[in-house]
Order: sequence, then C-alpha cells, then structure tokens
Amino acid sequence: MINASVRLQSVPASPIRKLVPFAMQAKKQGAKVYHLNIGDPDIKTPRVFIDVLHRWKKNPIAYGQSQGEPELIEAIKLYYAQQGYSFIRPKDIQVTIGGSEAISMALFAACDAGDEIITFEPLYTNYNSYAATTMVKLVPITTDSQTGFHLPAKSVIEKRITKKTKAILFCNPNNPTGTVYTQKEVQMLVEIAKNHKLFLICDEVYRDFVYDDKKHTSLFNYMEQMPEQIIIIDSFSKRYSLCGARLGMLISLNKDIMNGVLRIAQGRLSAGLIDQLMASKLTQVPVAFFESVRGEYQMRRNVLYMGLKKIAGVTLSKPEGAFYCIVTLPVNNSENFCRWLLTDFRLNKETVMLAPAAGFYRTSGLGQNQVRIAYVLNANDLRKSLHILREALKKYQTISHQ
Amino acid sequence: MINASVRLQSVPASPIRKLVPFAMQAKKQGAKVYHLNIGDPDIKTPRVFIDVLHRWKKNPIAYGQSQGEPELIEAIKLYYAQQGYSFIRPKDIQVTIGGSEAISMALFAACDAGDEIITFEPLYTNYNSYAATTMVKLVPITTDSQTGFHLPAKSVIEKRITKKTKAILFCNPNNPTGTVYTQKEVQMLVEIAKNHKLFLICDEVYRDFVYDDKKHTSLFNYMEQMPEQIIIIDSFSKRYSLCGARLGMLISLNKDIMNGVLRIAQGRLSAGLIDQLMASKLTQVPVAFFESVRGEYQMRRNVLYMGLKKIAGVTLSKPEGAFYCIVTLPVNNSENFCRWLLTDFRLNKETVMLAPAAGFYRTSGLGQNQVRIAYVLNANDLRKSLHILREALKKYQTISHQ
Repeated sequence: MINASVRLQSVPASPIRKLVPFAMQAKKQGAKVYHLNIGDPDIKTPRVFIDVLHRWKKNPIAYGQSQGEPELIEAIKLYYAQQGYSFIRPKDIQVTIGGSEAISMALFAACDAGDEIITFEPLYTNYNSYAATTMVKLVPITTDSQTGFHLPAKSVIEKRITKKTKAILFCNPNNPTGTVYTQKEVQMLVEIAKNHKLFLICDEVYRDFVYDDKKHTSLFNYMEQMPEQIIIIDSFSKRYSLCGARLGMLISLNKDIMNGVLRIAQGRLSAGLIDQLMASKLTQVPVAFFESVRGEYQMRRNVLYMGLKKIAGVTLSKPEGAFYCIVTLPVNNSENFCRWLLTDFRLNKETVMLAPAAGFYRTSGLGQNQVRIAYVLNANDLRKSLHILREALKKYQTISHQ
Repeated sequence: MINASVRLQSVPASPIRKLVPFAMQAKKQGAKVYHLNIGDPDIKTPRVFIDVLHRWKKNPIAYGQSQGEPELIEAIKLYYAQQGYSFIRPKDIQVTIGGSEAISMALFAACDAGDEIITFEPLYTNYNSYAATTMVKLVPITTDSQTGFHLPAKSVIEKRITKKTKAILFCNPNNPTGTVYTQKEVQMLVEIAKNHKLFLICDEVYRDFVYDDKKHTSLFNYMEQMPEQIIIIDSFSKRYSLCGARLGMLISLNKDIMNGVLRIAQGRLSAGLIDQLMASKLTQVPVAFFESVRGEYQMRRNVLYMGLKKIAGVTLSKPEGAFYCIVTLPVNNSENFCRWLLTDFRLNKETVMLAPAAGFYRTSGLGQNQVRIAYVLNANDLRKSLHILREALKKYQTISHQ
C-alpha cells in the first residue's frame, strides 16, 4: 500500500460543493434544484465581454504574459484610478487565476510554513483550503450573529497575536456573513497591523455590493500610508458576472511581495488568454450596470431577509453587503438537513441546495445548526426557495433523523 | 520593515521568462525578436475550438464544476479510449488549470513538506517552482548530452532513494532535452517504483511529438498493473495549440489521490468555463491535424539540428521528441549572452531570444554554457534565427564581456 501525503487529508472538502453529487442525482431524477449554495450570480455578463468571444481573431491561442496581458493591466490601472486610487501602477498589479489564486499567493508570500494568520470566523470556507495547501495556520476569532458578525474589541484581537503571527486576513464586504466593516473597524485593523508589523490582507471581491446607507471602507485608502504591509485581493467574478472566467488580481505596493508573486506566476505561465482579453474591456462596462446590479441584490436581500424572518425557528442578522448570509436553522445538524433536502425532500418536484455552515468555521463544533445562503437567484425563485425551505423544515421536524 | 516569507525567495525566476522585459524593450526599440525561448507553438489552433467562441451563447459565464465540466471529462475519457486506454473512467480524471496545476497538485498529494522526489536534470524549469511552492525537495540525477540525456543505470537511481523519497518524476518526451525514453527505460522506472513503493509521476504533455522511428512508451500502459502508484500529467496546450487556454489534466487510478486532488480543486472553484467548453471539442480534431503537426515539427527539428551542427563551437544531441533541445554554446555564461542578444545585438534590426539553461538544472553550476531552444517557429524563421545566432556568437567572441 502506498499512501498519499498526510497533508492532503488536511485539505477540506468544500461545504459549498461537496453535496454536488447529491444535487446532480436529484436533477437526474427530474427534480429542479434552486442553488442557494454557491455565489454564482445569475446576472448576465455584460455584452462587451461576450463580444470579445464573438469577434475572436487571435490564432493560435498562445500563452499570455505571466504578470497579465498588458491591455488588461492597463485597464485595471484605469479602473482603480477611476475609483480614486491613481497611485496604483502596473507593477503593483498581478493578474491571477481567480481571487482564489491571489489569496493562495498572498498566504505563501506573507508566511513561512507553520506561521499564523489571524482571521475572523465564520470565514470564506476556501481560506481553509488555501491555508492547507500553503501550510499556514489560520487563527480564527469567532464573530457572532448577534452583533451582525462585526469585529470584537482591539484587545481581543491583539491577544491572539503570537511570535508566529504574520498577517491579519479579512474579507470586506464579508463572505459568508454579509457584514460590511465600518471605517472604525478597518482603522482598528490598520492600527493593529502597524503596531505589530503585520501584513494586512483584505479580500475585497464584493466591494461593489454594499446596501442601504452603508459605506465600504476600502483598504486602498490606507495603502499609501502603509505601503509595505497591505495586500489587496480583488476579482472580476462577482463585479462583472465573470465567475467562470477565473480572473482576479493581487495588488500591493510591496516590491518584494510583487516580485515574488510574479515568480510564482511565471511557474504557472499565465492566466487564460481568452479570459484576459475579454476582461480587458472592463472599463467599457457602463456605470448603470453596477447601479442596477446593486439595486437588484438589495431587493433580493430584502426578499430573503424578510422571508427568512417569517420562518419559525430561523434566525439571522440583516446582511449589509456581498450576497450571502449565515442563517441559524431549527436543526441539530445542518449538513444532514442539506443532504436530506437533496436526497429525500421534494415540493412539487423542487428542492433547494444550501451550504452547511460548519465548513465556514475553523473552530470545530461551531456552525452545526447554521447554513450559508447565497441570494443569487431572482426574487421569484428566491420566494419559491423560501417556500420550499419552510415546508422542508416543517417536514424535517416531524421525522426521526434530526 | 516587514519581510516577505523566506520561502518566497526559494521560488526561482523563470529562465524562460525572466528576460522578457529585455525582449519587450528590444521590441519597443523596433527590433524583431525571434522567440526560441518558449514552447508557444505557432501552429494554428484547430477551427473547431475557435468556433466555440464565435458561437458562444452561455450567459452568465458561470463557475464550472471543480472536477471539470462533464462534457469535457466525457471527451477526455473518449480520447483516452481511442488511444487504447479504455479503462480510464471519469472519476480518474481531474481537469486542471494547465499541466502546471496538475504537477503542483501531484507534488502536494504525493509528498509532505520536506519529502523528496527523484527527477532527472536538465529538467523542465517550472518543476523548480512547483517544488518550491509545495515545499518538496527535488533530488536531481544529472543526465548528459553525450548519451542523448537518456537515463543512467538502475543502480545509479536507486542509490538516491532515501526514507524521504516518495516519488520519481519524469517528463516523456522530455522538455527541455527532447529525449524520448525507450520502453526499457520506462520499464526500469516502473520496477524501481514497484520495488521501493514510490509514486511514479509522468508528465506526458508532449506524447504526440515523437519523430523518426522512435516509439513513445506511455505510463498508461502500466497503470492497470500498478494502479495506486501512477500519476499522469497531461495537457491540451501543445497537442491542440491551446497554450493560452490553461487546461490540463491529472490522471490516476488511486482513489485517495483523486479525492484529495478534487478537494484542492474545490478550493479554487473551477478551471475556466470558456476554455473547458472549447476543449470539449477535442475528439472532433481530425487525425490528419496531428500527422501534419508532427511532420512539421520533425522538419523543423531537422532544420534546427542541421543548422546548429554547422555553427562552430555549438554541440547538441539530436532531439527525438517534444520541440526543445539543450544546446551547448561557446560562451562562459549563457545568461549574459542571452541578455546581450536582447539588449545589444541586432542583425538587420533582428535578434533571437533563447532560454539560459542553468535554470533547467537543480545542481548549481551546471548548464552555464547551455541554452534551451524551442523550435516552435516555421522553417524560414528558424533559418533566419540560426543565421542571427551564428553571427551573434561570432561577434560575442570578439568582445570583452564574455
């Protein structure tokens, strides 16, 4: 017998995706499955990107530049300048294969094996995967539904800093909680990073998705005063409905980080050429697109929030941004419930797929009665999903396996 | 001052790409640069793939499946069945973001940090990057131009096996040497792996590029007798002129490896959707395409080999496959020479870009007077490149900095 590596076991199955085989089975049996498990928006990709495919002329489809295609990097620079960050130069930009690769690169670049990164749970579950593959230890500080998953006091965070701590990683607006951190909270993290000489890594892929009167405080605003310590993760996936294009970026003013990250990028040659040339049209997307998308998500958020509040035994805090929320259900084990929804429950041949929340925590035992819901379906489908969920919970409570 | 991780320094700059800024500078100055540095074929991507772009209908461009899009996996299965490997099932296939990702995954899955993998140098330079990012120690066995870079005796290889050795990694046909290992050599590696319970990882992305009367011995032929130990790396890049599509695959019958690799894949969500749907047309590529491509490369190989043999002081062994060769030049430091070609030398406003070979060795000090040449240009451009190289070497020998 020959064994795979021990560390391979430390890579968790995705709670978003591990139930996929059951969903496929349900579909084979003729069921319609409403996907609230994954943040794969139904918003149409803007025409200007699709046109690049229809007008494609380059042949052969050759490798791109490791840092990113020059026209894409120029477009990204212009985009940030339009956002008010005109200090971002091409050399501060590394195009990555999704935000995923950007985070993996950031963890590898900031930490040696066994080093620690402080983060906040519930967290984006795939951080667990990137931490496993880069052999970084995530140190989770638990945040709570009752405070809308906002950050604890400075002293609580500082207490977790050890000699091995190299960075603080946070996601703002937050996936999976929907929390938008206040300027005060961001300022606090900046101060901690400054005082303890830590990297501050912020995943801002949902920057455009902020609702009501909330304001997003981007780490870009602190970059010039702390040029060596800030690493920003960004992505085309959600902003432009380009999830399948696998394109993101890592932005930093730290030269060593950027040089090192480029060397990692050279090893994997380039991001996809077609995706990059498509994305290089980003500045041609009309502002109205983002406004209508934000409006649409805010409306969906309202539908979901109001609907969930009405289901007996369900609790949640109102999401402020992104398109996720962590919801507490009246079940003991949400993973069993989520699987049962796919394998056993049908309402008029329909069911819903949710992501069990335990995988969004580092601390074992937490999130057992929670799920993450992504509100990426139109209001009508959301209402149907809410109805299915209510009926399913009723039925589940009457049967034995909970 | 805040420092990047120590391990970031261990990721080498790509010898294929690190001179790119000089090449860009040369082009800005109006020079034409013949790219013999990178295996980016000029062969046209078959029409059937490009048609997928022109007929693109899916909108939004959503995430694909983490394992790979079902139609692509079916097409890959059919492709292998056509090659005589009908035992390959969908669950044995993981679609990856280029062969690059497949190798990284294989190293992570086979080894814990600090474990060793025996390989043969000169080696594909990016193996050094993947080893650095997965914290695996590559143990290089040096092969020699005089034996056409073929493998040493079994005892030489076995002598390098330690308690930490987990795998043997080889590339067949070989990048950068062009060597096609004989059936006897492959059989020898299979026996060593069997006797010492090692994984045998083979990078077969150049499987279709074998010239003259040589036969390629694929590790697929040994998979059923050693189902737990073989991991095969494959790619669409070279076979279909789809380098920029960033698609490859990892194939193994080892269930633990495949489950673990799928978990890693879930973390990065999916490979590019457009690239995958394009590649799913692979079985529609006519056999005549491969025959003509192979004929074209064999002809180029001949042009390059004959041309290089005629340049005073240049030595090389005849490449048997892939589209690379390691060439010894009459210079002390090939990196300086390669840089000089881009910064200082022009022949009628033209120059050539080569990859310094030192980066294709693990053992420091080796390859200093060698370069890797990729014969991915048409015969006419190759002849021009040979002429430029000859004149450049003459001039370089007359000036001081060598």
